Amino acid sequence: MLSKRELKILRSLRQKKFRNEHGKFLVEGEKLVQEAIESDFEVEAVYHGQSQTPPTPSSFAVQEVSQKELSQISSMKNPPGIMALVKFPDKSFKISSDKILAVEGINDPGNLGTILRIADWFGIETVLCSEETVDEFNPKVIQSSMGSIFRTRLARVDLTEKIEKLKAKGYSIVGAEMSGKKLDRDTIPQKAVLVMGSESHGISPEIQKLLDFSVTIEKRGGAESLNVAVATGIILSYWV
Amino acid sequence: MLSKRELKILRSLRQKKFRNEHGKFLVEGEKLVQEAIESDFEVEAVYHGQSQTPPTPSSFAVQEVSQKELSQISSMKNPPGIMALVKFPDKSFKISSDKILAVEGINDPGNLGTILRIADWFGIETVLCSEETVDEFNPKVIQSSMGSIFRTRLARVDLTEKIEKLKAKGYSIVGAEMSGKKLDRDTIPQKAVLVMGSESHGISPEIQKLLDFSVTIEKRGGAESLNVAVATGIILSYWV
Repeated sequence: MLSKRELKILRSLRQKKFRNEHGKFLVEGEKLVQEAIESDFEVEAVYHGQSQTPPTPSSFAVQEVSQKELSQISSMKNPPGIMALVKFPDKSFKISSDKILAVEGINDPGNLGTILRIADWFGIETVLCSEETVDEFNPKVIQSSMGSIFRTRLARVDLTEKIEKLKAKGYSIVGAEMSGKKLDRDTIPQKAVLVMGSESHGISPEIQKLLDFSVTIEKRGGAESLNVAVATGIILSYWV
Repeated sequence: MLSKRELKILRSLRQKKFRNEHGKFLVEGEKLVQEAIESDFEVEAVYHGQSQTPPTPSSFAVQEVSQKELSQISSMKNPPGIMALVKFPDKSFKISSDKILAVEGINDPGNLGTILRIADWFGIETVLCSEETVDEFNPKVIQSSMGSIFRTRLARVDLTEKIEKLKAKGYSIVGAEMSGKKLDRDTIPQKAVLVMGSESHGISPEIQKLLDFSVTIEKRGGAESLNVAVATGIILSYWV
């Protein structure tokens, strides 16, 4: 059983404000908990229901909790029987890769999670995101990343400033836009930052100024646009 | 104001069973209603709130309803101020295109809607889906298709039987699977059926038997899989 104080803290982690205050987030479900444990992230505690076999503890606490407590903590309609409390990763890492994905103002948590999963599939190690992009520790981002949140390095940065610096270091800056060069195997240089804009507003004027050029997925039918995660998947498949 | 009977019928259309019984479905929001009106589909009626300018009627009825009625009919948390009642399209069409997309057992309405949007973007006219695939007139499918439901011809068929027939007519049958030929511009023949399996189970053994070969999106990183809609987008971008 959890103390009132513990329960209150765990419940509060459903909100970004309290995740930032505590520097921790919750991961729900057996598969994601296992991925968290196996990752470089620091798991602080695992909470599980009676019917769930807990993982073998190493550096973290394991505690059995009631079904009621699980429902109170969970952000899901049908709470899974196991959750992990995970510390925010160290975000001060040096960018060492030639291929960088940058996302600007992605609001939909499902889209950001799916983009992380795609980046992970294609071996993109570094994802930069603008400050107003949806919180990466939002439960829906974590769920839709299918564990890729633990394998991709995401940095929340002043995107304009960061892109200016990368441009000065020889990176080509390439935006995904509705009109631009036709996407093919050699359209995007090997050393580049690919910028994906927000679902509704695209790439901001500040970042558009920094673009060397834009790239476009050729349209042949009637749809007005592609979902931003789908577009990211297509472009990465030609670039990596 | 709507009669009790009308209200009951409109509300019931949130369920597949009643959509099939009446042969009608609801479309919500200004953009989708406009797309429905401009499409080949037959719009029977448009319902709108006081603040919403109704479209100019032609062959359909236009009725002002209260906010309460809109909320009662809507399947959305924040009901938009306008909805259209649309008849099921005539589904007896002849397949005339060389490139056919077939989806088997897609359960998630967001995925099916996104797949229709992608097919529409790439000009794939015909989408075949297995009988157990989620209902295409599910409100979430319609929303996530972003109007492509009105431009893509979707046929719900006995997929094994249909694919057997198409194979006999000279179509290559190509599955998207985790191991197969590496995807590139010329991997999939011009005249072919591309089969995308379900999110959790992939392609069924019955249809696997009919495949000429499988195609795979090369993986370079850690993610176990790609979302089925993302994978569809990537493969179509190389094929069309």
